[in-house]
Amino acid sequence: MQNHKKFNIAIVGASGFTGSELARLLSLHPAVKINHITSESHEGKKFSDLHPQFLGILDQTLESSKVIKNSDLDIIFLALPHGISMDFVKTLSEQKARIIDLSGDFRLESPEVYEAWYQKQHIFPEGFKNAVYGLPELHAEKIKKSRLIANPGCYPTASILSLAPLTALDMIETDSVVIDAKSGLTGAGVKASPTTHFSNVNENFKAYGIGTHRHTVEIEEQLGLLSNKPTLVQFTPHLLPVDRGILATAYAKPKGEMDQNKLEKIYEDFYADKPFVRIRKTAPGIKDVRGSHYCDIFPFWDERTNRIISISAIDNLLKGAASQAVHNMNLMLGLEEQTGLEQIPLRP
Amino acid sequence: MQNHKKFNIAIVGASGFTGSELARLLSLHPAVKINHITSESHEGKKFSDLHPQFLGILDQTLESSKVIKNSDLDIIFLALPHGISMDFVKTLSEQKARIIDLSGDFRLESPEVYEAWYQKQHIFPEGFKNAVYGLPELHAEKIKKSRLIANPGCYPTASILSLAPLTALDMIETDSVVIDAKSGLTGAGVKASPTTHFSNVNENFKAYGIGTHRHTVEIEEQLGLLSNKPTLVQFTPHLLPVDRGILATAYAKPKGEMDQNKLEKIYEDFYADKPFVRIRKTAPGIKDVRGSHYCDIFPFWDERTNRIISISAIDNLLKGAASQAVHNMNLMLGLEEQTGLEQIPLRP
Amino acid sequence: MQNHKKFNIAIVGASGFTGSELARLLSLHPAVKINHITSESHEGKKFSDLHPQFLGILDQTLESSKVIKNSDLDIIFLALPHGISMDFVKTLSEQKARIIDLSGDFRLESPEVYEAWYQKQHIFPEGFKNAVYGLPELHAEKIKKSRLIANPGCYPTASILSLAPLTALDMIETDSVVIDAKSGLTGAGVKASPTTHFSNVNENFKAYGIGTHRHTVEIEEQLGLLSNKPTLVQFTPHLLPVDRGILATAYAKPKGEMDQNKLEKIYEDFYADKPFVRIRKTAPGIKDVRGSHYCDIFPFWDERTNRIISISAIDNLLKGAASQAVHNMNLMLGLEEQTGLEQIPLRP
Amino acid sequence: MQNHKKFNIAIVGASGFTGSELARLLSLHPAVKINHITSESHEGKKFSDLHPQFLGILDQTLESSKVIKNSDLDIIFLALPHGISMDFVKTLSEQKARIIDLSGDFRLESPEVYEAWYQKQHIFPEGFKNAVYGLPELHAEKIKKSRLIANPGCYPTASILSLAPLTALDMIETDSVVIDAKSGLTGAGVKASPTTHFSNVNENFKAYGIGTHRHTVEIEEQLGLLSNKPTLVQFTPHLLPVDRGILATAYAKPKGEMDQNKLEKIYEDFYADKPFVRIRKTAPGIKDVRGSHYCDIFPFWDERTNRIISISAIDNLLKGAASQAVHNMNLMLGLEEQTGLEQIPLRP
Repeated sequence: MQNHKKFNIAIVGASGFTGSELARLLSLHPAVKINHITSESHEGKKFSDLHPQFLGILDQTLESSKVIKNSDLDIIFLALPHGISMDFVKTLSEQKARIIDLSGDFRLESPEVYEAWYQKQHIFPEGFKNAVYGLPELHAEKIKKSRLIANPGCYPTASILSLAPLTALDMIETDSVVIDAKSGLTGAGVKASPTTHFSNVNENFKAYGIGTHRHTVEIEEQLGLLSNKPTLVQFTPHLLPVDRGILATAYAKPKGEMDQNKLEKIYEDFYADKPFVRIRKTAPGIKDVRGSHYCDIFPFWDERTNRIISISAIDNLLKGAASQAVHNMNLMLGLEEQTGLEQIPLRP
Repeated sequence: MQNHKKFNIAIVGASGFTGSELARLLSLHPAVKINHITSESHEGKKFSDLHPQFLGILDQTLESSKVIKNSDLDIIFLALPHGISMDFVKTLSEQKARIIDLSGDFRLESPEVYEAWYQKQHIFPEGFKNAVYGLPELHAEKIKKSRLIANPGCYPTASILSLAPLTALDMIETDSVVIDAKSGLTGAGVKASPTTHFSNVNENFKAYGIGTHRHTVEIEEQLGLLSNKPTLVQFTPHLLPVDRGILATAYAKPKGEMDQNKLEKIYEDFYADKPFVRIRKTAPGIKDVRGSHYCDIFPFWDERTNRIISISAIDNLLKGAASQAVHNMNLMLGLEEQTGLEQIPLRP
Repeated sequence: MQNHKKFNIAIVGASGFTGSELARLLSLHPAVKINHITSESHEGKKFSDLHPQFLGILDQTLESSKVIKNSDLDIIFLALPHGISMDFVKTLSEQKARIIDLSGDFRLESPEVYEAWYQKQHIFPEGFKNAVYGLPELHAEKIKKSRLIANPGCYPTASILSLAPLTALDMIETDSVVIDAKSGLTGAGVKASPTTHFSNVNENFKAYGIGTHRHTVEIEEQLGLLSNKPTLVQFTPHLLPVDRGILATAYAKPKGEMDQNKLEKIYEDFYADKPFVRIRKTAPGIKDVRGSHYCDIFPFWDERTNRIISISAIDNLLKGAASQAVHNMNLMLGLEEQTGLEQIPLRP
Repeated sequence: MQNHKKFNIAIVGASGFTGSELARLLSLHPAVKINHITSESHEGKKFSDLHPQFLGILDQTLESSKVIKNSDLDIIFLALPHGISMDFVKTLSEQKARIIDLSGDFRLESPEVYEAWYQKQHIFPEGFKNAVYGLPELHAEKIKKSRLIANPGCYPTASILSLAPLTALDMIETDSVVIDAKSGLTGAGVKASPTTHFSNVNENFKAYGIGTHRHTVEIEEQLGLLSNKPTLVQFTPHLLPVDRGILATAYAKPKGEMDQNKLEKIYEDFYADKPFVRIRKTAPGIKDVRGSHYCDIFPFWDERTNRIISISAIDNLLKGAASQAVHNMNLMLGLEEQTGLEQIPLRP
């Protein structure tokens, strides 16, 4: 690989956690070169001024996003808040570069659904036609040809992978799904606020967005696509006093007969050739996947109650954001899908 | 109060967290005197040698439990593991002293159910006849007259209080109940093991006892008593990387029409004269109750899915163990129920 | 106590951690009544809206600080940032009420020193004449008669108590003192900022204010008062990923002969009648004092190096702020000094 | 590299944190093959049974250490407790394979010093003659030729690197050195005990081994070698409630004139060609190096007190153990020293 021409990429939005994780993965990726990292608010500073762990590793100067407008780039990563990202997608849509958008702006099936759940007008409805939902385990073929990837949300990644084998076979009662999800604090973003204040998070635990979280509809749509039926999901996110990790505990009633062996086989078959999904025999912890691109799943059938409990764990900043984006990039560029994603979970 | 004769109490089992919390509450309680604290393995040491935070406060010598056999005591607290506690209850059952057992040995409706879920033979089946389930919000009158209190488990306390108003009115579908519960590490006890090793807990989060946790049947029995119907509960505990606190997120389908106002009124009416249950308008965090005897509950009706989500928070070592035992003692001794339980949650 | 007239107090500044801890202690204090709690930015809200742990316990309405100007109060607590507090002290100095100022505005020996270390002009230099440094273990007699208490800083409380027995006897080389101190995050205050963002604190640890922290001069002045010699202290604070607690590790070279027995005796004699200082035989942890007014000290003489290492632990929000203020109030009002300060450390 | 024959290595001792981190680094290292991983107590299990994060990545079967006795290995890593490691070194000393011992058994200058500080008889005193102290920044040339590496302790690595530039130039008063060090809990090892119980570590902080910690003499010897003078170090370790990281705050009085520019230049010159030491302009946090092989140092001169404060940060499991061992291996095998050590710190 080292001898080949590298692909040119840019990271738009350097100050957040996903920007920083993209930079970490891509600066070690053997097939790409980071041409630009942009930040409007920190233009002129070094990347390592913002993220001191990169001192001596990535001291590249942050540029205004204007520089990417006519650059000769292969892939542009947008690590921006929703609502702002759509502006960039619109502006950049005529360029040669293909776009991986890490925001929520193009994940849903239509601008109408977007506006209902995000309570914000969408300025680039045309984008929805071409956007591909970038979950490689489900949509690899479409991703390869896409020019606009809507990189999935962190909760949806864990939740959809947790139930996809069952919905794809139409094996659960569609109104019985409860997903009780828990995320590390980095899911709340880099902005300082009472929500992210240490003393409100540490030694604490609470639910939020009950009944209204935007990831609900993203999960419902993707599960619905698999089963070809409308799916209603009760999704409740909670905030964990840890930096990284999502654990989703999903409950569903099976249609028809079920047993543990059958259940395990369904999951193993479904993910047989997916290198980053690991089916476990016991419940995973979030530290089993931290710092890696893995999604670990433990499917369990409770004979007493005849209910399925499927527990999945990911690193919200990686499989839930940055490494998923790199995985998508690998597919788009015709690279081996594992390239640059070999990190082994960091534990303890 | 200070001028009256104090009641004589003993704490059997000093080395664990509940023993230490009982000592903390009872040493400041205005109506009692701690006559004995016992520990077989630490006999002869000071209590503050085991629990250094008590230096200069409670330097009482730990005694063998033999001393309590013929003591003139009013209340004996058993802070012992299940399986061991029943021995003491049997031996002490002829004495004058009334017993508050913090273990799980007498919480269930029969020795048969106990043996099925605890996989252990019960050596004192007669105890079940007289034991009263010590949840003051439900059984205050029986508690006052009881000679043997089975102090509830931590998860059941949070779970039962969270759903009791609805089951008492038979307002939920009994097979729709999912309780996704999360506990701080002290719930796993003081014993050093891989489970309690810092590096397995810190920055981690995982489910355990899926489908098999003993608290499941305790919850089912108590909810069933309220509704007069068998109740099937899907109960999944998880381990939080915090010291204290339980958050239980309970899901259930309502029978008949529901709305948010109606739901809140049901809860407020049910707990109208219960000083330690606080009905909230927003989701509580475990830090809102830490170090206190409160149980905070947020009942929510999701119109979109027609499902009720009731979230409750307690301090597992207090409302889930030690302060609940003191509350029971207050009732048994004819004291004002709040006596000695005025601690305001410690936050941050 | 309950039948006597209660003293009237006010808390000015409700939104921070010290305001909230004062409210917690004072609402349970048997000899006082909280007449007013003020907050300019949250006027009209309930106290429990700001601090949800107080729901049903302290739902008092927050008032503008204007109300205290002509109130009939015995004690006013100022829980305000430095620089703002001096305004209030100036305005209130003619009133009957005595003031306990929890800020740093009147802790130093002169406005000149203040201005050098705080880099801010002092608007009420006259205040310094009457202000008493409110460390009860050193200045109880002056505190009883004072009308303006400068409540000590958190680091100085731990640091001064750790070395006071030795400096009072002039037994250490005054240029050999190194104090390496570590504080929980609440020391950084309630304001959301990158410093207090969970992801910058959790799993992290770093030094700050190296060579320049304002508490340095406060420690130097108080130790200098005891020894009657100028004392130069190398003070380095660090930020711990915990909510509460300060541990100060102080190093000093003894003058003359030293041994462990002699060292312990010096400490035990010095604090013989001080109920809240506990001299330990082993190193304390911050959790041994959390939630309490205790200061635990372990003095150690290293024979090999002939150096003294004195380790002290306090709860920065209590002995380092709010409970210290209540202790001062008790002395000022002629109450038993332990009144309302009986909390046993909350551990685990 | 991929096309060349790989070097054969073995990891003896799989159950601890250093064994697991060695496996993580070496399984991704381009120039080596892990022939054996051994564990007496877990023989026959898979490596991923012990360390579930390795599921599907390193499922290699654990073998008895007997297998390495006549294997054709290039390097053997001993990840064993001190006292046990020396047995293996003795037995293996006649083999072809070169040894990197991660224990403390051969770090000191003589068996006599070892026995004084470790209070244990040494069974292989001959080993000291050939053992090389494996700190690559100081001893790279010796390491390249060595057949037995004594891999440095975690605290000594941070402490020695923090002061080496000054002692090498004989610029500090040798009796003025105080090192106040703080380590994450993984430094205490994988064994379950009260010390490693979550509830004793979380939200806590305390000193231990005051005046007696074995790393003291290791630091003193290495600094003494550099300055050619006996050096007396006051070393106090503390336990941080985090998984990984050491921060060492070192204090020393300069000999002769000092200023900040001069100080920085000394450090930059000394580490000019050392790729893993980063000299910072502000204080590093442990999260700035977590998961990486970096040692970050901030040297500061306090003009007011004329004292130097040098703050260093490492990941105790990596630069303080496993990655240092890999660095030594690279030197021994004639590889580029950065090979396999490119990990960027994982933050947040």
